[in-house]
Amino acid sequence: MCFVELFGCFFFFLGGGVCGKCKVIVRDGDVADEPTGELTEDEVQQGFVLACRTTIGGDVEIEVPADSHAEWEQILTDDGSSRRVTDFTDAAAKEGSADGHVPRQFAHSPLTSKVCLQLSRPTLDDNMSDLARLEHAIRRHGAEPPIWTGLGQTRRLGRTLRERDWLITVTLTERDGATEVLRVEPGDTSERAYGVAVDIGTTTVAASLLDLTTGETLGTKATHNRQTGYGEDVISRIIHSERGNGRADLQAAVVTTVNDLLGALVAEAGVDLDDITALSAAGNTTMTHLLLGMDCYHLRRDPYVPTATSVPVADATELDIRSHPRGLVACLPGVSSYVGGDITAGVVASGIDEAERPSMLIDLGTNGEIVLGNRDWLVCCSASAGPAFEGSGMRCGIRATQGAVQRVSVGADGSGVTAATVGDAPAIGICGSGYIDALAEMFRAGVIDRQGAIDIDLATPRTREGEAGAEFVVAWAKESGTGADIVIVQSDIENLIRSKGAVYSAAKVLVDTMSLTFDDLDAVYIGGGFGNYLDIDAAIWIGLLPDLPSGRFRFIGNCSLTGAKAALLSAEAREKARDIANRMTNMEFSSEPAYMGEFIGSLFIPHTDIGLFPTVKHGMSA
Amino acid sequence: MCFVELFGCFFFFLGGGVCGKCKVIVRDGDVADEPTGELTEDEVQQGFVLACRTTIGGDVEIEVPADSHAEWEQILTDDGSSRRVTDFTDAAAKEGSADGHVPRQFAHSPLTSKVCLQLSRPTLDDNMSDLARLEHAIRRHGAEPPIWTGLGQTRRLGRTLRERDWLITVTLTERDGATEVLRVEPGDTSERAYGVAVDIGTTTVAASLLDLTTGETLGTKATHNRQTGYGEDVISRIIHSERGNGRADLQAAVVTTVNDLLGALVAEAGVDLDDITALSAAGNTTMTHLLLGMDCYHLRRDPYVPTATSVPVADATELDIRSHPRGLVACLPGVSSYVGGDITAGVVASGIDEAERPSMLIDLGTNGEIVLGNRDWLVCCSASAGPAFEGSGMRCGIRATQGAVQRVSVGADGSGVTAATVGDAPAIGICGSGYIDALAEMFRAGVIDRQGAIDIDLATPRTREGEAGAEFVVAWAKESGTGADIVIVQSDIENLIRSKGAVYSAAKVLVDTMSLTFDDLDAVYIGGGFGNYLDIDAAIWIGLLPDLPSGRFRFIGNCSLTGAKAALLSAEAREKARDIANRMTNMEFSSEPAYMGEFIGSLFIPHTDIGLFPTVKHGMSA
Repeated sequence: MCFVELFGCFFFFLGGGVCGKCKVIVRDGDVADEPTGELTEDEVQQGFVLACRTTIGGDVEIEVPADSHAEWEQILTDDGSSRRVTDFTDAAAKEGSADGHVPRQFAHSPLTSKVCLQLSRPTLDDNMSDLARLEHAIRRHGAEPPIWTGLGQTRRLGRTLRERDWLITVTLTERDGATEVLRVEPGDTSERAYGVAVDIGTTTVAASLLDLTTGETLGTKATHNRQTGYGEDVISRIIHSERGNGRADLQAAVVTTVNDLLGALVAEAGVDLDDITALSAAGNTTMTHLLLGMDCYHLRRDPYVPTATSVPVADATELDIRSHPRGLVACLPGVSSYVGGDITAGVVASGIDEAERPSMLIDLGTNGEIVLGNRDWLVCCSASAGPAFEGSGMRCGIRATQGAVQRVSVGADGSGVTAATVGDAPAIGICGSGYIDALAEMFRAGVIDRQGAIDIDLATPRTREGEAGAEFVVAWAKESGTGADIVIVQSDIENLIRSKGAVYSAAKVLVDTMSLTFDDLDAVYIGGGFGNYLDIDAAIWIGLLPDLPSGRFRFIGNCSLTGAKAALLSAEAREKARDIANRMTNMEFSSEPAYMGEFIGSLFIPHTDIGLFPTVKHGMSA
Repeated sequence: MCFVELFGCFFFFLGGGVCGKCKVIVRDGDVADEPTGELTEDEVQQGFVLACRTTIGGDVEIEVPADSHAEWEQILTDDGSSRRVTDFTDAAAKEGSADGHVPRQFAHSPLTSKVCLQLSRPTLDDNMSDLARLEHAIRRHGAEPPIWTGLGQTRRLGRTLRERDWLITVTLTERDGATEVLRVEPGDTSERAYGVAVDIGTTTVAASLLDLTTGETLGTKATHNRQTGYGEDVISRIIHSERGNGRADLQAAVVTTVNDLLGALVAEAGVDLDDITALSAAGNTTMTHLLLGMDCYHLRRDPYVPTATSVPVADATELDIRSHPRGLVACLPGVSSYVGGDITAGVVASGIDEAERPSMLIDLGTNGEIVLGNRDWLVCCSASAGPAFEGSGMRCGIRATQGAVQRVSVGADGSGVTAATVGDAPAIGICGSGYIDALAEMFRAGVIDRQGAIDIDLATPRTREGEAGAEFVVAWAKESGTGADIVIVQSDIENLIRSKGAVYSAAKVLVDTMSLTFDDLDAVYIGGGFGNYLDIDAAIWIGLLPDLPSGRFRFIGNCSLTGAKAALLSAEAREKARDIANRMTNMEFSSEPAYMGEFIGSLFIPHTDIGLFPTVKHGMSA
């Protein structure tokens, strides 16, 4: 399999050569690679190069090692629905949850809908125009005037109306108070109405195909955001967007990613791309800007003004999305440069905006966004968690795909390590929940100290001095699916500590700002691709989540995707999203001394102030 | 000058070889021409061919004779404003016109308008998105929400707003109750707001450039509709549109015609094409269909259903119109397959829809459309006049351009002929008003009889047997600008009689249908490109117009263009046009026995029933 086929050649020589994730083996052809510390001597001898530091001189034949393969992911696409109801019930039972909150239901009124109409045949006495006949019938059906049919549909109308003897199916949407006719088809095609909900993450893009008539989810897939080749986080993407054709490159990359997902979803479900007339997208503000090709320049400059937070509905053709050309692309509204439509979607999915008592939503993506509030008020902030929880920027980090280590247990002093993988396949890398588990277990086992330093003096051969410093072996080469040891290196641990510290300190400052404590929270909703697979206990041990009874935590999975689905299927949810985006107050903590103090305190396991984590304190002394 | 440069090579071998109008001289190159009876022996010897019957074998050098030259026309572009007020005053004074009707005034509210806004600078405490800031300012200015800014404008918004320190000019329009932001420019550009009104005639396209702020007309130009190469009348255009790429060819031809006019208008006025953000077009239903690229197939088939009469507003880019890409193209609404937006525009311009007593509007284009009504009712019909009054399909017919014969006097028995031309230039052909004058004069002088037969036995050398039958010389070769005799041939007279008969009989059946007589009419408005230059007396003598006192006739010039201008400049006029189109009842006479009877009776000069024309009867016996 050729690397170029997988990720596009933009990977070549565009990255920073820092993460070592784009290792490939050059089998044939002329390449010039720069020296890098990210490859072991063994790897160099085997012909490995870093794609991001390699210039190709012509056609090359490349082997992509197993742990780099792009595969559809099953885990990151969970919208929490399988577990949510149970969790909610459990939580309500255990904790006597104030209002017995259940996942909200919205009235069904999809973004686009089909209506089958039998028009009357014209006669010499009734020869109004085809367009007037069509619009009269739509009005009689109950649609709100004015009715607007674009020129594209109108041009072909004469033949379309007559093809099945004046029996037609129209696809309608409501835009700015007018009814818009997106598509006119001959005959009754009302059973073929599909939409797609997309969560556009900085690292991972997940999409669900939905039957707009029944509301049923026909399939869900996720894949790597192709923009990753231009930088791991939103800041590096924005910087790239300011260079030459950067914005266009980034837009093309994410559109191709979405189109890949659409293609795979329709192939599996046996649906025609042309029958997809609505796409509801939730992403952070940078992702939304890049999807729509909007200027990102001011997003990262004081006073951090986005081009748009409530963005215009676009046509699929404007963006080269491969649905029906007149298909709508509606992005959920965001709040600020660093709190986007994904968070609005998360609030829609969680329902914290309707509860009486305050709750918190923590969305663990590349940015860790946090929302606190109730039906009267909502505040939010963004924590620059970085992509560590998505397995990105880590030596053996991968997304939660087949063969990803997701559960780790470590015996005392690093002995007796077991690693459970997704699909029980041989380990090919470690995903976010695996890293959190491993970090907690290594800490409990004494493999690392409170600052995260690996103790290489332990008796176990699993701790050792590697080429890039101290490392811990999670799985040996002989058990692994890559033929190499699966390791956690010292810099991975530093990454993880910075990420968990960023999230915890932001959450802490948010509750402090509102003069609350974590204990005042009715519930803490955990969203994000790996949310459902997170071990709460481990997350508390490392100081990522506040030390609350486990029943207070509610997994809502990929709540950005859930919110995007709700907006796809319900006008009430779309209205709710607008309302949430309007009334949510964004807090900018990045330059606040209080936040900096909290952050520095959080760069320990679990925290410099161990009193904040009584369970851990008790466990450590046990 | 090369013919191909003038009309495009589509002329070659697409015509029917019947009118002899596309004569060119081949100077160099390989051509194959078919024999034709439309060229004289002299012409064949001089190297003349008919372009429409000639195949070119490669590059050719061609001379286009003077009488074929395309020139901007000054006469067809008259909107009657120079003469209308005087005429109206005269008419009111002479006839005691019932309501002293004057040309209507509409409140100024152009289709698109510019507003200059100073936005507040964002700060950390006020960092709403650029789009929200823009839309707030527009709302504060008084625009109706919802406000809709398309993706194209939004993408660039960040830099545009900051380029002149938050001073911007927006171009707004109202569409379906929403305010649409078409353009955002840095700085104050509010003085540069232009629009174009276009009359899309089957034969001639006329356009005016207007300053949307002041309402001033900056220039008016007219030219040949490039579609003419595909057929002279709407039926032959529709037939062509049904073949292969025919519809696209016809659309491209008219769009190129409009773009040519736009280019010439802005060049003369020193205006930038990008500052044109609105185009208001009036045309018959076929012309409107072809401009927008709509299916024409059913226009000519029972029960004669147009694709659309009230057509969606299009964007300039959708049509390749060379104005600002987001410029609007709004077509005036029509009534039926054969009564289009040009007639609605004519009614808007005439104001007959507001008068108490009934009036009639006769629009003398390729189709002669007739409207009868008052403020309570409006009926209309279409008469297939053919293009004779536009000089098309006639041996020496040309449009009313420099050198066109527009006034003719003929002495008794054909002696003492004088011919006055546009611009007093040597005669190069005869335009519509010249033909009507000539026909009346020839009839009065006894050169033709009541059936239109030329008497070649007269003593004058001006009547003679030509190659294609009897003919009458209006101007001798030695006085003409073409070096050839300017003649009226027998078939020209037959054309003219059919045209005038079609118009008169339709008008007659229309008043009969409403149980009125011509004498009940308060006024007869004469519209059409040559309206102002028509000799009413001559038109009555040939039986084109009903025999009413001359003060009853009111010239309103190119009322389709006037109506298009009104719609460009005023929401009230646009609303009025919609109202007129909705309440006007179209009469289909073509298969009515009453109409056929009237038509046959009209194929005489002035009519079989001379009693209908007492003035002529009196004149003949004088």
